[in-house]
This record gives sequence, C-alpha cells and structure tokens, in this order.
Amino acid sequence: MMNSIGPKLVVQVDLKKKPWEQNPPLHNRWHPEIPPVADVRVGEVFRVEMVDFSGGGITKDYTAEDIKHADQSVVHYLSGPVRVVDLDGNPAEPGDLLAVEICNLGPLPGDEWGFTAIFDRENGGGFLTDHFPRATKAIWYFEGIYAYSPHIPGVRFPGLVHPGIIGTAPSKELLNIWNERERKLEETGPQSLKLCEVLHSRPLANLPSTKGCILGKIQDGTHEWNRIANEAARTIPGRENGGNCDIKNLSRGSKIYLPVFVEGANLSTGDMHFSQGDGEVSFCGAIEMSGFLELKCEIIRNGMKEYLTPMGPTPLHVNPIFEIGPMEPRFSEWLVFEGISVDESGQQHYLDASVAYKRAVLNAIDYLSKFGYTKEQVYLLLSCCPCEGRISGIVDAPNAVATLAIPTAIFDQDIRPKVNKVPIGPRLVRNPVIPQCTYDGSLPITKNPLLDQQGSSCNMDARS
Amino acid sequence: MMNSIGPKLVVQVDLKKKPWEQNPPLHNRWHPEIPPVADVRVGEVFRVEMVDFSGGGITKDYTAEDIKHADQSVVHYLSGPVRVVDLDGNPAEPGDLLAVEICNLGPLPGDEWGFTAIFDRENGGGFLTDHFPRATKAIWYFEGIYAYSPHIPGVRFPGLVHPGIIGTAPSKELLNIWNERERKLEETGPQSLKLCEVLHSRPLANLPSTKGCILGKIQDGTHEWNRIANEAARTIPGRENGGNCDIKNLSRGSKIYLPVFVEGANLSTGDMHFSQGDGEVSFCGAIEMSGFLELKCEIIRNGMKEYLTPMGPTPLHVNPIFEIGPMEPRFSEWLVFEGISVDESGQQHYLDASVAYKRAVLNAIDYLSKFGYTKEQVYLLLSCCPCEGRISGIVDAPNAVATLAIPTAIFDQDIRPKVNKVPIGPRLVRNPVIPQCTYDGSLPITKNPLLDQQGSSCNMDARS
Amino acid sequence: MMNSIGPKLVVQVDLKKKPWEQNPPLHNRWHPEIPPVADVRVGEVFRVEMVDFSGGGITKDYTAEDIKHADQSVVHYLSGPVRVVDLDGNPAEPGDLLAVEICNLGPLPGDEWGFTAIFDRENGGGFLTDHFPRATKAIWYFEGIYAYSPHIPGVRFPGLVHPGIIGTAPSKELLNIWNERERKLEETGPQSLKLCEVLHSRPLANLPSTKGCILGKIQDGTHEWNRIANEAARTIPGRENGGNCDIKNLSRGSKIYLPVFVEGANLSTGDMHFSQGDGEVSFCGAIEMSGFLELKCEIIRNGMKEYLTPMGPTPLHVNPIFEIGPMEPRFSEWLVFEGISVDESGQQHYLDASVAYKRAVLNAIDYLSKFGYTKEQVYLLLSCCPCEGRISGIVDAPNAVATLAIPTAIFDQDIRPKVNKVPIGPRLVRNPVIPQCTYDGSLPITKNPLLDQQGSSCNMDARS
Amino acid sequence: MMNSIGPKLVVQVDLKKKPWEQNPPLHNRWHPEIPPVADVRVGEVFRVEMVDFSGGGITKDYTAEDIKHADQSVVHYLSGPVRVVDLDGNPAEPGDLLAVEICNLGPLPGDEWGFTAIFDRENGGGFLTDHFPRATKAIWYFEGIYAYSPHIPGVRFPGLVHPGIIGTAPSKELLNIWNERERKLEETGPQSLKLCEVLHSRPLANLPSTKGCILGKIQDGTHEWNRIANEAARTIPGRENGGNCDIKNLSRGSKIYLPVFVEGANLSTGDMHFSQGDGEVSFCGAIEMSGFLELKCEIIRNGMKEYLTPMGPTPLHVNPIFEIGPMEPRFSEWLVFEGISVDESGQQHYLDASVAYKRAVLNAIDYLSKFGYTKEQVYLLLSCCPCEGRISGIVDAPNAVATLAIPTAIFDQDIRPKVNKVPIGPRLVRNPVIPQCTYDGSLPITKNPLLDQQGSSCNMDARS
Repeated sequence: MMNSIGPKLVVQVDLKKKPWEQNPPLHNRWHPEIPPVADVRVGEVFRVEMVDFSGGGITKDYTAEDIKHADQSVVHYLSGPVRVVDLDGNPAEPGDLLAVEICNLGPLPGDEWGFTAIFDRENGGGFLTDHFPRATKAIWYFEGIYAYSPHIPGVRFPGLVHPGIIGTAPSKELLNIWNERERKLEETGPQSLKLCEVLHSRPLANLPSTKGCILGKIQDGTHEWNRIANEAARTIPGRENGGNCDIKNLSRGSKIYLPVFVEGANLSTGDMHFSQGDGEVSFCGAIEMSGFLELKCEIIRNGMKEYLTPMGPTPLHVNPIFEIGPMEPRFSEWLVFEGISVDESGQQHYLDASVAYKRAVLNAIDYLSKFGYTKEQVYLLLSCCPCEGRISGIVDAPNAVATLAIPTAIFDQDIRPKVNKVPIGPRLVRNPVIPQCTYDGSLPITKNPLLDQQGSSCNMDARS
Repeated sequence: MMNSIGPKLVVQVDLKKKPWEQNPPLHNRWHPEIPPVADVRVGEVFRVEMVDFSGGGITKDYTAEDIKHADQSVVHYLSGPVRVVDLDGNPAEPGDLLAVEICNLGPLPGDEWGFTAIFDRENGGGFLTDHFPRATKAIWYFEGIYAYSPHIPGVRFPGLVHPGIIGTAPSKELLNIWNERERKLEETGPQSLKLCEVLHSRPLANLPSTKGCILGKIQDGTHEWNRIANEAARTIPGRENGGNCDIKNLSRGSKIYLPVFVEGANLSTGDMHFSQGDGEVSFCGAIEMSGFLELKCEIIRNGMKEYLTPMGPTPLHVNPIFEIGPMEPRFSEWLVFEGISVDESGQQHYLDASVAYKRAVLNAIDYLSKFGYTKEQVYLLLSCCPCEGRISGIVDAPNAVATLAIPTAIFDQDIRPKVNKVPIGPRLVRNPVIPQCTYDGSLPITKNPLLDQQGSSCNMDARS
Repeated sequence: MMNSIGPKLVVQVDLKKKPWEQNPPLHNRWHPEIPPVADVRVGEVFRVEMVDFSGGGITKDYTAEDIKHADQSVVHYLSGPVRVVDLDGNPAEPGDLLAVEICNLGPLPGDEWGFTAIFDRENGGGFLTDHFPRATKAIWYFEGIYAYSPHIPGVRFPGLVHPGIIGTAPSKELLNIWNERERKLEETGPQSLKLCEVLHSRPLANLPSTKGCILGKIQDGTHEWNRIANEAARTIPGRENGGNCDIKNLSRGSKIYLPVFVEGANLSTGDMHFSQGDGEVSFCGAIEMSGFLELKCEIIRNGMKEYLTPMGPTPLHVNPIFEIGPMEPRFSEWLVFEGISVDESGQQHYLDASVAYKRAVLNAIDYLSKFGYTKEQVYLLLSCCPCEGRISGIVDAPNAVATLAIPTAIFDQDIRPKVNKVPIGPRLVRNPVIPQCTYDGSLPITKNPLLDQQGSSCNMDARS
Repeated sequence: MMNSIGPKLVVQVDLKKKPWEQNPPLHNRWHPEIPPVADVRVGEVFRVEMVDFSGGGITKDYTAEDIKHADQSVVHYLSGPVRVVDLDGNPAEPGDLLAVEICNLGPLPGDEWGFTAIFDRENGGGFLTDHFPRATKAIWYFEGIYAYSPHIPGVRFPGLVHPGIIGTAPSKELLNIWNERERKLEETGPQSLKLCEVLHSRPLANLPSTKGCILGKIQDGTHEWNRIANEAARTIPGRENGGNCDIKNLSRGSKIYLPVFVEGANLSTGDMHFSQGDGEVSFCGAIEMSGFLELKCEIIRNGMKEYLTPMGPTPLHVNPIFEIGPMEPRFSEWLVFEGISVDESGQQHYLDASVAYKRAVLNAIDYLSKFGYTKEQVYLLLSCCPCEGRISGIVDAPNAVATLAIPTAIFDQDIRPKVNKVPIGPRLVRNPVIPQCTYDGSLPITKNPLLDQQGSSCNMDARS
C-alpha cells in the first residue's frame, strides 16, 4: 500500500482577486452558521491558503496613506471554515477537542513580502498610540527564512512564521456570551477604567457590525445575512475559540488543542504573520502577509471535559492549549528591558502588568533610538521582531514587573552597553525615511514629562 | 605577573546565627544612608553570601505554621551594601551605570534545601490568594543542579538559580518619589481600582515601617535609626534601582546594568532563588534559599545619560537593563496555557494582562490537577518551576492574551493531551500529604462559578 | 524604489522527464568546461530546482530491487552550473571566495517523499556493508517539517533539510590533482591499507568514467564530450571545491564560503536530503529527495588568499568554510553511544577515528534493536535521523574515542535505560516488513564473534 | 521524616599535599585489586574531590619547563575506587550496569585556575605534534562559569566542566584483554600503519609500567604491589570501562551507564576539565584542573545483558552509554572548518576520519591565526574551547569528511569572513607572549609544502 504524497489543497486564494471575489469565499466574522467550505479527515495533511488580514487593502507602495485610512470593519479575512470528520466520516462534536498540528506554513509563492504599520490614533490605535499617533508603514521583503526592510535598515531576522488567527466556530450560546460581555464593557466607558488612563487605544471593544461584513457562502443582502451579520462576532480579540490569539510561537511543528463548539468544529485561519514580537505592540504590528498553512487534525472525543476545566459561569468558558514546535530560530544572546507598574506621569499602579509592559517597551524604544533609529522605527521593529514579553513578577505589591527581551543578533551592530567606549562612535547613521502621515486629530499626546520639561524633544522631533 | 585566584569573600554569613546577629550586619530596607560593609574594585570577582529572604524564619520542618504566622515586616534580609570603586579608587558616582556580572552563584554548602509556600490570605496573600487562602509549604532538596520535593512528587528540574533582589541604594530624592507614590496608592484604596476586583492580595503597597526594620551598621534604637527606619523603603516591590525584580533568568553569566544614585553605588543582594517561574505566583513562590553570589563589576561613567532615558517626571525615573547568560537549562518541549482578560465571573476586562495571566495560571492549575496533584501543589509548582509567562497579545481589544508555558520534561509522566487513550490510565496516584494550615479568616473565596453550580467541588475538596 | 519580490527561478526541473531530458540540462561530473546554464548577480535571491541524486532511478515502490541494481555510474545528477557576477557584471574570478547563503530550501511541491537505502555489498556498499550486505529500502513521507516511514515505525522527526552537494567547478589544474591522487590510491589496492580490514566498502576511489556521464550543454557523443568525460571527476567524494560534503547542518540560513577556481565560479548543487545523520552511514543513507534551493551569493574578492590557507603542495589545496544557520530543530535530550578504536574481532587500532565510529554505530544499532526494530531498520535510521557523530578523543593512544548522539524525542517510546523495570515491557512490537533483497555475493560477513560463538544470531536472523 | 541535606563527602583531597600523600590514597592505574576507599549507597548524593591529572606536577608558573619535562608515567591521579551498594547493602555485581548521575561538579574552592599545554614532541606529543613540537603552556583563570587566559587574549568562554576520566574497575579477564591487544599493537610498530604517516604522536600504546605507579591502599614496594603494578593498565586511553573517554559533554546533569566488571563496581574518577574541545587535540589539551564531583548512583541489575551487546570476542567487549545533561552553554552561531582525508603532502587516504579531522583542525588554526594569534595559541585554544568535532561523511570514497565547529561568541572580535572589508583592519594585535620551550629533538617537522616552497614560513615563524 502506498501512502498519499503531499498535502491536499482545500482552500486556494487568488491574489489577483478581491477578498469578496475569492472562491471558496472568505469570511471575516465568527458565527456558527457560516457554512464550511471543505471537509477534511483526521490524519490527512491539508493546505489552506489565506490572503493577508486586510485582503490587499494595505499595499506594498511606499506610502502610509492606506494605513491611515484603513477600513477596520473588514478585518480579518479568514479562510474556511473547514469541517473535520473522523476516519468513519463522523464529524467532530461539541465537547471534543480538535488537535491541529501545523506541519508547515509560509508566504505564498510570488508574494514574499509583508508590512508592519502603526495605525492612526483615531483609526485603530495601538499599545503606544498616545506616544505615536501618526500612521506609519514599513515594507519587509523576504529572503527565504529572513526578512529585511528598507525602512528599518540594519536589521534582518529569521521569521517565526505563524497564523495570527486560528479558531473554531463558536456555538450560538458562546456567541451570546461574547456579545453580552463585550457590549457591557463598551457601555461602561473608559472613564471608569483605571487602565484607560494609560492605554489609549479605542474603542474598548469591537462589537458586531454589518459594515464590511463578509460571511462566506451566505449570500450578501439576504435576510439570513442580515441576521447573522448583526450577531456575528468581530475577529479582533482572541477568545474561548482561539481566534486572534497572536501567539508568535505557533509555528512549524506546533500543536493546538481547540475546543469544539459546533458539529464539524468549523476551523478557520488567517492573519498570517511572517514574524511578530510578543504583544504585537503597534497593533498592525506583525509582519503581515498572505500565506499558506499545511495542517493535520486529530479529534479527541470528549476532550473538553477530559482536558479543559471551564473557568467561568458556563462549560464554554475555556481556553485552548498549545504545544510549541521544535523549529524555532535559535538566539543565544538577549538584551532585556524592564518596566514596573508606574506610568509615564510617575503615577503608581497596583500590580498592573499592562502598565509595566508599556513601560518596558518605552524603555526599549528610547534605548534603541540611540543607535540611529527614529522611535517610530523601533516601535515598529519591536512589534514584529522575535522579542519576548514576560510577566516576571506579579506579586510584589505595588509593582508588577514586566520585561521585554530582544535578541541582539538581529542587528548588524552591537547594541549592548559598552564599558569601554570605542573611539569611533558605534552609532551608525540610519536612513530615517519611512512612509508616514501626519496626525490630524486633536487627542493629547503622551510626552515623557522630563524630556518635555527640559525642552528636549525626542518625541517631538520624531513627530515633526 | 600572576593573576589572583578565586573570588574575594566580602560578605560572609553564619547560618547558625540570627539575621540580626550577622557580621557584617544585614539590612532589610532601601535607604541611601545605610553604610557600606565592604569595598570592591571594578574587575575583581567577589563573593557575597546571603541568608534566605526570611532569615531562617521559615524552617525545613514539615509544617506550614511558620508560613501562616510569618513576620512580613522583616523581609527581605539583604547582604551589603557593597561600595564599588574604579581602578584608581574613585567610587561609582550618581549618573553612572554599574554593570554587574553574575560569574557564579548557588546554595551555601551544607544548606542545600529550600522552600516554596503559599501565604495565608490574611498574612501576605499572593496572585491567587482568593482561590488558595490557606498557608501551605513544600520543602525542596537539591541534588546538585536538580531540585525535588517530597511534597510535590513526580517532578524534578534543574534550577535556574538567581537572586530575587539585586539593587543599588536609592538617593534621598528617589526615596521620596517612592514613598509618595506608594502612599498615594495605598490611600486611594482598593475600591476605586478595577483590578482589585480580580487581584485580592493586600495591602496595595508596603509602606515604610519601623517594625522589623534592620539597617546594617546603623545602631538600632538611636535617633538616626528611627529617622531612617521611618523613611526607608520596603524591599517588596522592584523599583528604579532594580531591587526585587524577581527576573528568573538572572543566572550564571548574566549582566545587570544598574543605575547609580549614590556615591559608591551601594549594591545590595538577597532573596536567593534556586528556581522561580515567571510571575512567582504564590508570592513566597520561588524555591527560597540561602546562597552565594560571585560578582564582577564595571562602572560605565555617565552611563545613565548614555544608555537610559528617564520615563517620568524626573531623571531618576529609569529602569535597569539586563543581558541574559548562556547557561540556562535547555528544554525543547513546552505545553502552553492561555488566558484572556475575562475574569472568573465571566466579566470582560479591557486589555488587562494581569487578569489574562491569572486566567492562564488558573487554566494550567486545573489541567495539571488532573494528573494526580492537588491544586495547591500545582499552584506551588508553577510558582517555582522554570515556566514562562508571556504577554502574547496586548492590542486586540478588549482581550489581552497571556500565556504560561511549562517545560514538559520536568514531569516523570507525559502530561500532554493524548489523542489515543492508553487503556491503563495515565493519571498516577500522587501523595497529597503537604504541610498545610486551615484558613481561619472570613474573606470570600473565589470559586469557579460553574463547578460551584454543579455541586462539584475540586476547590472545596482541596480546601477541606 | 520597489525591491523585487520573490526568488528568481534559474533552474527548473520537470519530474515527469528523465534526468537527461531536463532543460536546462543536468550534469553528473565536475569539470571546468561544463558550460553555465544561467547567470546570477550578487545579492539577488535565486531558485534552483534539483532531481533526487538518482534522477528517479530509485522509485517510491515498496521494493529494494531498484536499490540492488542501482546504476552507480550516473550519480549524482546536479543542477547548474550557475555563473555568478558582481553588480557591475564582472564574474567571480579564481582566487575569490563565493559566499553562498541558503535562504530557503525544501522538497519540490507535489513530490513530498524520500527514500533511505542500504546498497548491496557488491554494488555500492556502505560504512557497515560487511554487517549488512543486503539491498534494503525505506520510503519516507513528509508532513511539512516532519518525516515518517511505514518501514521504520515509531519514529518521526523534523528534517534538517540540506543539499548533500554544493560546490564550484574545479580548474583543470585542480582536476588533475584529484585524478592523480585518487588513481594512485586505487592502484595501491586495499591489501596495503590497515583500515581496509575494517571498512569494506569498495572501490577505494571512484575514478572518471564515460559510463553514465552527463555533461550538461556538452553534446553527448561529440569529441569534446569524450575528452571531458574521460577527465571529469566523479561527484561521490567531497573535495576542495565543496561538493559532496554531506554536512547535515547546511540548512536554512547557513552560509558557505566556497573557493573559486574558474571564472564565474560555476556553482552546482544537488543530492537534496530531507535529513541525514552525521556520517550518512548506510551510504544511500540520507532521506534522498528532489528539492529546491533559494540561494543568495556574495563575492569576496581575493578571499582565498585572505581567508584560506592552502594545506598541501599547491594553492588549490584548500577547503570551504561554513556558518551554521539559526533554524535547526531543537532537541534537549540525547542518548550517546561510544566507540573506541578496537574492531569487531577485538583487534587494537591506533587512534583510528573511523574504526571508533564504526564501533559506536554498531553499539547503537544493537542497543536500539532491543526496542522492536531489526538491525537493518536501525542502520537505516541512524543514516538519516538527525544524530550527531563526534570525534571525542583523538590523542589518548591507542584509542580514538568517537560518539554517536541520538535525540531521544524522535521515538514514540522512551528508549533510555531504566533503573526500575516497568512491569509491562517497554519493548513494543514493531512491523519488521521492510523492502529487502537477498545478498547473492560471496564476500564474508562480519559477525559479532561472541554472538556467533554462542550460536545466537541476531545478525543471522536479520539476514535470513 | 526529613531527608538528608547536601552531598556526603567520600573522598577529600588536600592540595597542599603531594598526590602520594593524600588520605584516602589516590591511584593512577586500572586494576581489579586496588581496594575501595569508600562505600556509597544507591540514591545518595556523594562528593569526590580530585587533584589535577598531574597531581600538581604542572604549576601555575608562567613557564613551559614543567610541561617539557612532565613525567608521563604518573598520569592520571584518580580518586576512588568507590564501592557501590544497593539499599539492602548488597554490592553491584559483574553484569550490572552502574548509572552514575553527575549532579554537580566544579573546580575546588580556592583553586580556580587551570592549564592547557602542548607536550614536547619527544615527551607526550599530541594530534599535531609534527607541526607543533615545542612544549607550550597557557594558564587559565576562572571567573565563575567563565575562563580567560592572559596567554590567549581576546577569548573568554563558559566552561562545560566535566571529568576526563570516569570508569569502573576492570576484571582480571578484561585487563588481560587490554594488555594483550595493546602490546600487540606496540609490537607491530608504526612502520606497518598507514595512519602513522600522518599521526606522529608516540608511543603507539601505553603499556603497564611500575615507574610512577600508585595503587591506592596497596603498600608501595610489597610483593603484591609489584605484581599488580606490572599488570595494571595505564589510564591514558578510554576503554570498555569508560575511563579516559574525554567526552566534553559529560557535565552537570549527565548520566553515565557504566558496565560493572568487579563486585562493588569500584568507580574511580579524575582528570577534571574546566572545558575541552572535541578531540582534545593538543593532548594536554583541556583546561586541566583539580575539582569535585557530586554523584548519585543507581544499579541496574543484570543491565549489561539487558542494554549492552558485546561487540567482540567476549561478553566484556562493550562500551558505556551516556545521556547528556540539560545545562550546557548555549551558542547560536558557529564557524565550521572542513577537512577531507587528504594529508598535508597531498596524499589521498581512504575514508580516514582521523586524517580528515587533522586537516580540519589545521585549516581552523591557519584561519584563526589571521586574527592576531600565533598558531600555537590557536592549537591550544581549539584543544580547550567548546568546539565540536564531527564525522560528517564516512562513506563517500575515498574522502572522509570531518568538521570542526567553533562558537563565534567566545571571541571579542567578529571572526567571520567579511564580504565588505572594513576600512580599519579587523585583525587586532594580540600579545604573543606565551610560555614556550625550544624543541631540541631531531624529528622532522611537517611543513605546509606550499608555504615552504614559497619561502613563506608561518610555521617557521611560529617556531623560531
């Protein structure tokens, strides 16, 4: 008996077409009633192709105008759903676990490029949007495993390629839980949330919206489409079904144990990243690209009960589990930046890891900007290079300690502090020409208070 | 010319003496006026010995009574300060960076054991104190690089030994900043802090207190002692001077770039950990031990200005930088648990990494408790084993995504989910006898709402 | 200015055609006069496709007949030569170094399978041909980064994909050196060589031969063809030009510094391996496949003089240098077998690393055969899995010590020795059905003398 | 019940005493009748201290005179034998396997230094003794995990500390096998051995000798002593009992499965190395030091039969098995040198890995000598730094391919070839002052024929 050779192609995309013209059709919402576009059996390796998260809305042109005016309602274009059946043809059932192995993945041949961007503060924002409100974009080119960018010179690194989004379809009940809790948050408003004094990206939650909605085989404009579009969850946050978890280590050889909420599991994937840093801080922050996945599924019958414990009011309040693969790039030297939960104004927060991480990232940006980069360039770089964001201490009141570790080998210069100054300066002149727009809004900018006092103005320079 | 051989012993401790009887004397507060106990020159390797953080208050007896009644006012006993001078004998100056290399470190010979504990909810608490309010303790024994515990059977792992605390003395100005901002937080009170609905450890901040204070060469009871004790900062949180940063990777070969705030830098160290997980979640959570450090210092003159950018209202609002060493234990396989910023009651939080990490840890505890452990055992284990806590996504509103990665090789059984059930169950019977006290307080316990509804009661069992 | 996207395709192969029908044509000899089939510029990423080393002679059928009768005269079919020019269009010159970066590589889409084989003792042989004289073959299927074989059940591993052959064209002078020294060896005969008592593969050298010769654009049967075919070096051994160096770590991200002997460098590649163990012991021993390389070249002008020192009578007696890439599979646990330079008859050899390595491999085969495999299966496995062969000691007369380290994670059972016997045996029943031929020759077989005495007969069984 | 804390000290050494004055006494031969000096039980961690291999014969003085006149008859001074018993007090028995875990190890406190040396060609020799016949010595100082040498400036690396020698006592029968086969080799003489044209270290074997013999508790000068001294095997080569296997990865956390040949196993250890490169090419080539081991033993009853297969005429023809530990230094970038089995005169050898490795090492030496080092300095460095020697290809007749991989991070300059020349030269001026003697013998020196022809004379310079 001969085995079959090569992965079975189940979803193909045509990059010359618009996302809504693809066949099989794409979707950009989570809903149990979006029909599967293909069936796969457990054990068979299959291939899914995907457009980039924006479906081509962001181009390879050297301009940030497309970023500034990006349509946030259409993200993320997903491929699937794929229905999974066992060797007897019986589909995965709610309560099962779907074990998905990433056998291989990469950019689509002929489309070996990607982009990393900062959204405009009033159209998307990001982790440091109050510091960097202007739309900015860097284009990356791929040389096999490596990426380099003319807009962030002096760095080159191997990609830890991964799907930003991999998830199963929610059940109706789970969908309701999502919509209810996120609506409640949105209605509460930022004024009551301490963290909103520090994290300025808005809205608080991304609620269902018919605008930009694409629902796969569901015909646009029908009654059914309208009903589903009004219920279907946006793809922006990661949730119980996996989804946009943006875990940068889900690369070759990883295994993902996803809970199954609907018959067939209805697996969807998208938002391919050539590389991402922990946190994906600039939001449009990975090296975003089109790409393919070669996957293999197993069904663990009744696995949700066996392996997951709900943590919340219903049996649906679970999270996926992952195994990390053996093919990650190897770095042996890391420079680590620390942040504590004291914000830029000097205000003390209580064990807040988000505040601490913001400070760690700001510290890293300031440090690296001494080596010939603008701060926006570093902000982009830390979004997409394989840096690690850690929660180091979360119990030593009042300070959470978070760290950001950067592999030093990605730079073509030695970025470590030097005890003995080299006579000729180590700081190279870099090309600061990076596609960038003006920020035309009126929201306040967070300035480093000290620098501001001194009339010094690294931030201002970078913004002018 | 012959070089000198072996590290110079600058601080020795005698484990048969009480912490306040040591010579040179120890200290357990940060203050610029605590006098140095020794001088070292740049480039020379020197040895500092340290008692464990509790100064022997927590014993190797198999009881948790000492934990339940632990005196929080005396932590952490530190060795030093050590004054650093250059080759010409000129001390480090404020504005310099002190580069400290950890050449070697380990437990003290003859004292090769440690402990990991859960504080009582009303006396110390911890990250999950609302779930695990009872004082609990595990004793670990060291076999060279490995630790094992009779109280958490079936695991053994190599230690990534590190000092929980390494820091320079603050200046008076920096001390004032600390005291002011932490007092303000404490006065605000938990009711106004959203995060306090989820993180229940109290107090919000640990303010100066004369109780339990030890100030090195400053004579107890003098007028000077009283003044300093009332000003001196507690050692619990990490801050601008490094301090209790609890970064588990600061092991052999690491380099720490500490800002210098006072003449001589006044380096202090303590809180030795045989091993710690990211976050040190049970608070008394590393494998706490006595130990030694072999250090080598360099002074980077004017390095604060050169390499650090203040992030806050004064030039003192900085954080240290680290380089990670080349001698970490190697693990190739990791099982990863995910959490999103939805709390145990199902409530949605906004991009809150602390909430997301709490959920990831809870998910891991529930999962591992299926393999023959009580939840308290796993809580302790995740505090002290070399697990990694990551901020994976911090921009996909409303959900922060945090992950906890556990090296599978530390277990003597295969803890991964299995697609094909082995006929004979994989879950080994473990010894659940672990030193533990009752919780006698009246604060509410966080129960998993679902389990509670069902009358099921893993938590209850574990507490009964 | 936009950069170009994706690698430039410079050599394409059509797997439905025979090797001699390909366009551009292939070649299977080294000679300065084989004309280049394409030009590439420094800095551009280009793609070269290759047939497997046998050009399809070995099939995916489950039989070893094709191995038994394999035509050794045609190996290895190479793609190229590629001529390399600088940005000004000037070719690489003799004396330069050609730095070739492997940006990416892999199997050809649709052809994701490979084979590992033992040649018949009288037609190819191998490192242990005196122990395993029968033609045997295993087919491997690729699931993305992983390979598995129905013929060697219970193992699966990620491939460290690499070209077995990468080299530049020799000059006429270098070719003469090769032919002369190899002919001299062949003429000496095995009887005078001590090592030939232990290593039984023959012939001693593979001299030029018109049989099976393919010379790219040189028309078969012409006078020129005849002349070149009689001079051109066989591709079997690695030599000064790189060639068949079979270095398993030349994978993604590696860089190879090749000496340039002719104008344009004339780079050829082939013999793609999905994976190989150090030594490639069964000779047809890697997972042999068709595949592609994405390469990028730089020219280091005058680099031979700058970086290489000849070690021999002429400036041409040099060897390439390599940098290993950052994307190797990560293994943390290895089981290591040792061999010393005492042969199977108990005879002592003097610091002979080949003899020591033979013994290390024999030890490993015997050990692993206890876990349900036939010895032939293990011999094949150690040829192709990512095991490491080390020269540990080469000075402690009379014993060289060589070691073979095997990553334990490639097995689905725990292959380490156990202190405490598990009641139910750890040795799984394996499927010993592997395509295999009889050995019809009359050369003596090396038997383990002890086993032979005892009438025990593991080797015999495996051969019967 | 409390566990015991810390390792049990079973062999202590006093560095102020001579090797023959130690108590318990040392030994420097292998013989079944050397009585144990201590008992240990399975499962207990015990500590063994050891003098350096020369017992202090080689000093920390900056001279090579001690090397030139080193007494080869006394090496290596070993600690032990240690008798191993099970929990019931029953000793290990012939046919068992002794599993020895290295829990910890290191230099002796106060003696943190070591040496690496080249023996004189007529007194010890080495792998390249024909190239480097002069006695030379470098002193290394330890800074915790790191070693640096004033004699080889510009390098510093973490030690992969290990015992060069760890072994069990041979039985009388095994001893006879050793003595017979080695005597036979010695009697054959070098003229009949092809490899002796390339490897010039002599004698061919190190036979029993009463000169310098130390036999532990056996009283010197007695009849018994005389008998045993005439039979006892020298410790220089690794053999069936482990012994001087010089496997550089036997560091913290490793496990060694040693065959047991006599009751109690009689484990001996010595020849501590702070670091060694694969091959230990200069013979006195590791960083030699005194040190300690913390070990834990298990007995696998009948394990030789269970896990080892004899490979030779008797059941004693076995070799140990190893597991490598998880605490090795991490390097991500390696520069690799290749050698093929063509010797320095240009002569072709048949699949000879020793010849290929010699060429790889010569290539590396020549390369690195371009960066400011003398060739002797590099020869010493490659003997002791954590470089890896691999048998890459052993089947591609006539060339064996061996490689030597050097971690680039051990150098303070970038030693990789550069495509774009830096205007200011990368080759630093190094201090060539290294303790060195003249070579007063008359054996011919191997010169690089080409360099010699040209009148150029790197080798000559280095020797003058």
